[in-house]
Amino acid sequence: MNFQNPVFIPGPTNMPEAIRQACYMPTIDHRSPVFGKILNPCLEGVRKVLKSDSARIFIFPSTGTGGWETALTNTLSPGDGILAARNGMFSHRWIDMCQRHGLDVTVVETPWGEGLPAENYEEVLKADKDHRIKAVLATHNETATGVKSDIAAVRRALDAARHPALLFVDGVSSIGSMDFRFDDWGVDVAVTGSQKGFMLPAGLAIVGFSDKAMKATETAKLPRTFFDVRDMGKGYDNNAFPYTPPVGLMNGLKLSLDMLLDEGLENVFARHHRIAEGVRRAVRAWGLELCAVSPDLYSDTVSAIRTPEGFNATDIVTVAARDYDMAFGVGLGEVAGKVFRIGHLGSLTDAMMLSGLGVAEMVMVDLGLDVKLGSGVSAAQEFYRHGGTARKAAA
Amino acid sequence: MNFQNPVFIPGPTNMPEAIRQACYMPTIDHRSPVFGKILNPCLEGVRKVLKSDSARIFIFPSTGTGGWETALTNTLSPGDGILAARNGMFSHRWIDMCQRHGLDVTVVETPWGEGLPAENYEEVLKADKDHRIKAVLATHNETATGVKSDIAAVRRALDAARHPALLFVDGVSSIGSMDFRFDDWGVDVAVTGSQKGFMLPAGLAIVGFSDKAMKATETAKLPRTFFDVRDMGKGYDNNAFPYTPPVGLMNGLKLSLDMLLDEGLENVFARHHRIAEGVRRAVRAWGLELCAVSPDLYSDTVSAIRTPEGFNATDIVTVAARDYDMAFGVGLGEVAGKVFRIGHLGSLTDAMMLSGLGVAEMVMVDLGLDVKLGSGVSAAQEFYRHGGTARKAAA
Amino acid sequence: MNFQNPVFIPGPTNMPEAIRQACYMPTIDHRSPVFGKILNPCLEGVRKVLKSDSARIFIFPSTGTGGWETALTNTLSPGDGILAARNGMFSHRWIDMCQRHGLDVTVVETPWGEGLPAENYEEVLKADKDHRIKAVLATHNETATGVKSDIAAVRRALDAARHPALLFVDGVSSIGSMDFRFDDWGVDVAVTGSQKGFMLPAGLAIVGFSDKAMKATETAKLPRTFFDVRDMGKGYDNNAFPYTPPVGLMNGLKLSLDMLLDEGLENVFARHHRIAEGVRRAVRAWGLELCAVSPDLYSDTVSAIRTPEGFNATDIVTVAARDYDMAFGVGLGEVAGKVFRIGHLGSLTDAMMLSGLGVAEMVMVDLGLDVKLGSGVSAAQEFYRHGGTARKAAA
Amino acid sequence: MNFQNPVFIPGPTNMPEAIRQACYMPTIDHRSPVFGKILNPCLEGVRKVLKSDSARIFIFPSTGTGGWETALTNTLSPGDGILAARNGMFSHRWIDMCQRHGLDVTVVETPWGEGLPAENYEEVLKADKDHRIKAVLATHNETATGVKSDIAAVRRALDAARHPALLFVDGVSSIGSMDFRFDDWGVDVAVTGSQKGFMLPAGLAIVGFSDKAMKATETAKLPRTFFDVRDMGKGYDNNAFPYTPPVGLMNGLKLSLDMLLDEGLENVFARHHRIAEGVRRAVRAWGLELCAVSPDLYSDTVSAIRTPEGFNATDIVTVAARDYDMAFGVGLGEVAGKVFRIGHLGSLTDAMMLSGLGVAEMVMVDLGLDVKLGSGVSAAQEFYRHGGTARKAAA
Repeated sequence: MNFQNPVFIPGPTNMPEAIRQACYMPTIDHRSPVFGKILNPCLEGVRKVLKSDSARIFIFPSTGTGGWETALTNTLSPGDGILAARNGMFSHRWIDMCQRHGLDVTVVETPWGEGLPAENYEEVLKADKDHRIKAVLATHNETATGVKSDIAAVRRALDAARHPALLFVDGVSSIGSMDFRFDDWGVDVAVTGSQKGFMLPAGLAIVGFSDKAMKATETAKLPRTFFDVRDMGKGYDNNAFPYTPPVGLMNGLKLSLDMLLDEGLENVFARHHRIAEGVRRAVRAWGLELCAVSPDLYSDTVSAIRTPEGFNATDIVTVAARDYDMAFGVGLGEVAGKVFRIGHLGSLTDAMMLSGLGVAEMVMVDLGLDVKLGSGVSAAQEFYRHGGTARKAAA
Repeated sequence: MNFQNPVFIPGPTNMPEAIRQACYMPTIDHRSPVFGKILNPCLEGVRKVLKSDSARIFIFPSTGTGGWETALTNTLSPGDGILAARNGMFSHRWIDMCQRHGLDVTVVETPWGEGLPAENYEEVLKADKDHRIKAVLATHNETATGVKSDIAAVRRALDAARHPALLFVDGVSSIGSMDFRFDDWGVDVAVTGSQKGFMLPAGLAIVGFSDKAMKATETAKLPRTFFDVRDMGKGYDNNAFPYTPPVGLMNGLKLSLDMLLDEGLENVFARHHRIAEGVRRAVRAWGLELCAVSPDLYSDTVSAIRTPEGFNATDIVTVAARDYDMAFGVGLGEVAGKVFRIGHLGSLTDAMMLSGLGVAEMVMVDLGLDVKLGSGVSAAQEFYRHGGTARKAAA
Repeated sequence: MNFQNPVFIPGPTNMPEAIRQACYMPTIDHRSPVFGKILNPCLEGVRKVLKSDSARIFIFPSTGTGGWETALTNTLSPGDGILAARNGMFSHRWIDMCQRHGLDVTVVETPWGEGLPAENYEEVLKADKDHRIKAVLATHNETATGVKSDIAAVRRALDAARHPALLFVDGVSSIGSMDFRFDDWGVDVAVTGSQKGFMLPAGLAIVGFSDKAMKATETAKLPRTFFDVRDMGKGYDNNAFPYTPPVGLMNGLKLSLDMLLDEGLENVFARHHRIAEGVRRAVRAWGLELCAVSPDLYSDTVSAIRTPEGFNATDIVTVAARDYDMAFGVGLGEVAGKVFRIGHLGSLTDAMMLSGLGVAEMVMVDLGLDVKLGSGVSAAQEFYRHGGTARKAAA
Repeated sequence: MNFQNPVFIPGPTNMPEAIRQACYMPTIDHRSPVFGKILNPCLEGVRKVLKSDSARIFIFPSTGTGGWETALTNTLSPGDGILAARNGMFSHRWIDMCQRHGLDVTVVETPWGEGLPAENYEEVLKADKDHRIKAVLATHNETATGVKSDIAAVRRALDAARHPALLFVDGVSSIGSMDFRFDDWGVDVAVTGSQKGFMLPAGLAIVGFSDKAMKATETAKLPRTFFDVRDMGKGYDNNAFPYTPPVGLMNGLKLSLDMLLDEGLENVFARHHRIAEGVRRAVRAWGLELCAVSPDLYSDTVSAIRTPEGFNATDIVTVAARDYDMAFGVGLGEVAGKVFRIGHLGSLTDAMMLSGLGVAEMVMVDLGLDVKLGSGVSAAQEFYRHGGTARKAAA
């Protein structure tokens, strides 16, 4: 393992060395007051990143998948109704989890590459007169397809239907990289992980609960212990966890939050947008198309790129790793073999992105695709150059 | 945070710097074949540490508590009977988890400081003619009381009763530090974590399943997704996880296993025994008593030390942290305020242990206990010196 | 300090993280036998990199400049004659050092961009009938101009003149990256540092002495203590230094040598050549010229690139740092403002190099140079792609 | 190499991990303005540690030995007179360096274990009517004998003799750990290194020059280039070095200075005094004597401890390393075999020191010395305990 090149998988992202060092601090006594000096800034910082004044934040030694389970098991009871759209691998998996936990999911099948169908949601919710649906699932950014959905529209659908269901949002690959508005959008549970926008290793599930979601924990009958937010909350009241906390990762999260908030969330989002837009211009210059079907859906954290019919997109990932020691993302599920993915989130610069685009081009030419070397790179350079100018003006 | 002194909490332990560096490796593509080169040695190494030929090993981004939940939810159905003894905080919590998951626990209340009552187990099991009890819980090493129980005796109880219940063992604070025999003892699920004998940060639940336990996963009805060993196993077949794996921690685990197996498990156990015995001699020299009621119960990873009536044992921990920047463990639950704990597991030397004993003495004198400075240290020195001689002969 | 982008200064180079970790190991007792296990592999490994069977290797806590001083003060006496060519900043500085130490230097002024004038050397040496010239200086790779000289030709000049002068070679920016043949070329003192081909931080002067050079130490009258190779040699005989050794840096050197020798020196050289050739093709595509006047002089570790008349080349370095957080090298001395330099040595991949070329292009366009975005990158890609193919065949 | 136990050699010291991490930063462009942000705080911070308002500070990639050479070669000419006392290995070596550089040293032989003989100095200086003596050497803290000398008294001797000689002070093992007053004592050149009070790896020579010493550089005729403070000073004026600077070590020095100045110099000195005094009480409890002949000479950074006649003190160091993996210092030169040394400087706590004393006791008993286990430890504990009380009151 050489670690010389940046990675371009859509998470875990490239990690600043300072964050890695913060993560692997020596052992402290997690029952001492020292731990509170790590815990509390984490809770407060995550709340700011969620743009919430009042969300209760919980951090588990787990991953985003554990965050989904936290959302479900703390608020719902067996047989409860769920409304969800399936438009990618991650929305699919969350639906599957619901079913395995005995929830009754109304699935709105949605073509992969499209966003959440807020209008369909509204229809279904209006039809649910007796409010059997207790929660609506919404994947903010489908990591499998590079599609960003409009969560505000989902909230509007709920409101238009005057439906009391909870709104659960998977923000795993958006939070910390793209704008997320817990309070404005009326989110009830937001779920994310450490390994995307927070630039940390995988290992933390990070969730935010609204007051309404907290209230639901009192009646929820799904069994849970490890992921029980009530135990966790009681622990926090004593600057502690109900079990051994992942102190190092949380110390890293504390630093990550400092870095993001020091840079300024809007600047962080603008940086992600700039780098992503360069990638999209490169894709266009290559004559290829994104999986996301329209510009309003383009994700600023990951681009899923369709390759021509008859070409196995996974080969790009294989050859890039084998011949150039560079990691891109494969297509998953329905779009396996049809797309490859470029992650462009976390700790990244224009220069790093150029190396990713440069290698992608070489690989595509190696594999016989009709792509011109330098074409995508120069399209990105042209865009970044103006970004550079903008940076100059700002400085 | 100064990190100059070793810690003497019973986990997370002192971590070798090489292990921390292995943990904080840069990001790799966890879907690439590189990950298999971390995963598979981990699975194989853990199996060796468990002294098993055939246990299926699963590693979750979680903690020992998540390991308990993995054991229960993968093998049991709501209403299933459980037999467990409560003889400390950790056995208590596991029982509580069972009850929260709708299991029907027969609790054998056992004085804190005593070991698992294998004879009572046998009685209860014999009485359970229709085998309503599906699993027997056994805490190998009660971290709260410093009591090591006889798991072989529990197995004999099961066998004597010809009872088919599964045997679940919590080896969180024993595995990797004290002898553990998965196969010989007929263990069905063994549970541990990363932050004790493996000298890693908290963040991994590590479990081993017997064939019989694997078979039980097919019929178990308790809901689970994050902790589902079937999904995990399918992932492993492709050198992958069902979700983002904690690559760095597992890379650290790989190194830890190399270190433990290179040193030799029996040497590792002997080292823990030697250091622990020095601590016990110091305790005796101080005129104090262990919480563990008899020598066969003495744990080689943690000593819980009773302080005189009317003295708040927690003060020792508070003053050690405040005045000497050293961390010991407080008493938990029933023995809160009555004991303080010295952890002596993981990455530790005789010299480091002397500094812990030296500080403990100073604190006890500071707090007015009738302890002579140097008394415990010299008792330990005397013992370690002969250990030193043994080491010389061995080298 | 963000450390996200690679650096493209001609040293210190990008450092593998494993090497940095080896460098900053905790303290050991440098008077204990442990130190010998670091020292001796370093001496042996450096000898292999020099392609010498018998050179005495000495390592000082210093830099290449200290290495020059070591060469001079250990072998020469005040008033001794020196023959040297000045064809760049570093040859200039070594000459200056000679003069400050009271040596009598015959300087062959040589245009910057040209190589060492072996023919002139032969002439001067032949004319030096009474052998007043005691040493000939030769800069193998002029870091200021990106010019690699032919050391074998200098040796032939000495031989042709039947002149007994010692041959001192500055290999600071060549050794470990380009072929160097201490024995074949009859080198008497080779000088290098830690921060170039060895991929370490600055802080070590590394020199090799021939038997003839060692003999000269017996009569040399220039004063020296810190840099005295006799003291150092006596220390080595006891696995020690005459003063506190830079243990960590040497531990890093040990790892670096392992890495270089494991990769294979010829593979290391081929890698440097491949990356360098890609840079040269980019330069050509930009319509620019190298400072080095002919292909046989092209350095595989650094390219000095001439910019058009009237353009201040230093602006490229300034803007790259300011707007793109990327470090290139400025022109030094005679070519200050006329060239900028791209370092391409040490720990580097094709992909990293593409990011350097990509940024250089953006900066040149920003500054109004007539360069086409993507032109240099695509020229390099085309070349690297075939290198990639070659790698595939080799694997 | 296990790195679990602290080291007790009198430097390099135990290093805080944060300092090591600062040292192993990735590569930056040392010719960019970023370097000035490391360099200038270093110069300013060292000046504060020297308690000087105006000393010119110079930092070389070298060691204390290089610092000695810097002092001599920048201010003196061949044949110049030097006055020095030889009372230990380090004063001996500095004298030897003078002689090798053609200086004419008047040596005042002084028993090892005694301090600098200021009265003899005064006598010699008064007798030197024509001021042939250009510099007086004074070793502030003889690391070989654990003897701290009175530099103010040496200054008084110079003043009493109205002698214009420069005063050079070796503060390698005192500066940053014990009080040092460059201005008050009228020091002209102070010499130290990175690996003692600054808690860094070896690799920096750090010197301070008075105005008078700077003036002497203009006429000094000893040859120097690498160690030339004029070149170095010119470099600093441009935030640069005359050659490649040891950026990482200097980044570590910057952090070290922040840590020392944040703690407060007087607190740092008090901490060293407290820990040292505990060691001295332990020595007394063992029935042994220090090499330093009277309490006013006791060093707060290192204790050299005499062992009984006929006993080889070096055995203690050998056995401690072999059987307990702990490093102490051997006796050097005249006191080789007669003393062993305990270093107690740099990053150290009371608890760490107890582990060193505890191991020393075990080794002495192992080797048959008439020492009672726990005797020294308890003497130190008794003292540290009151220190602890003091700390409490202060907090």
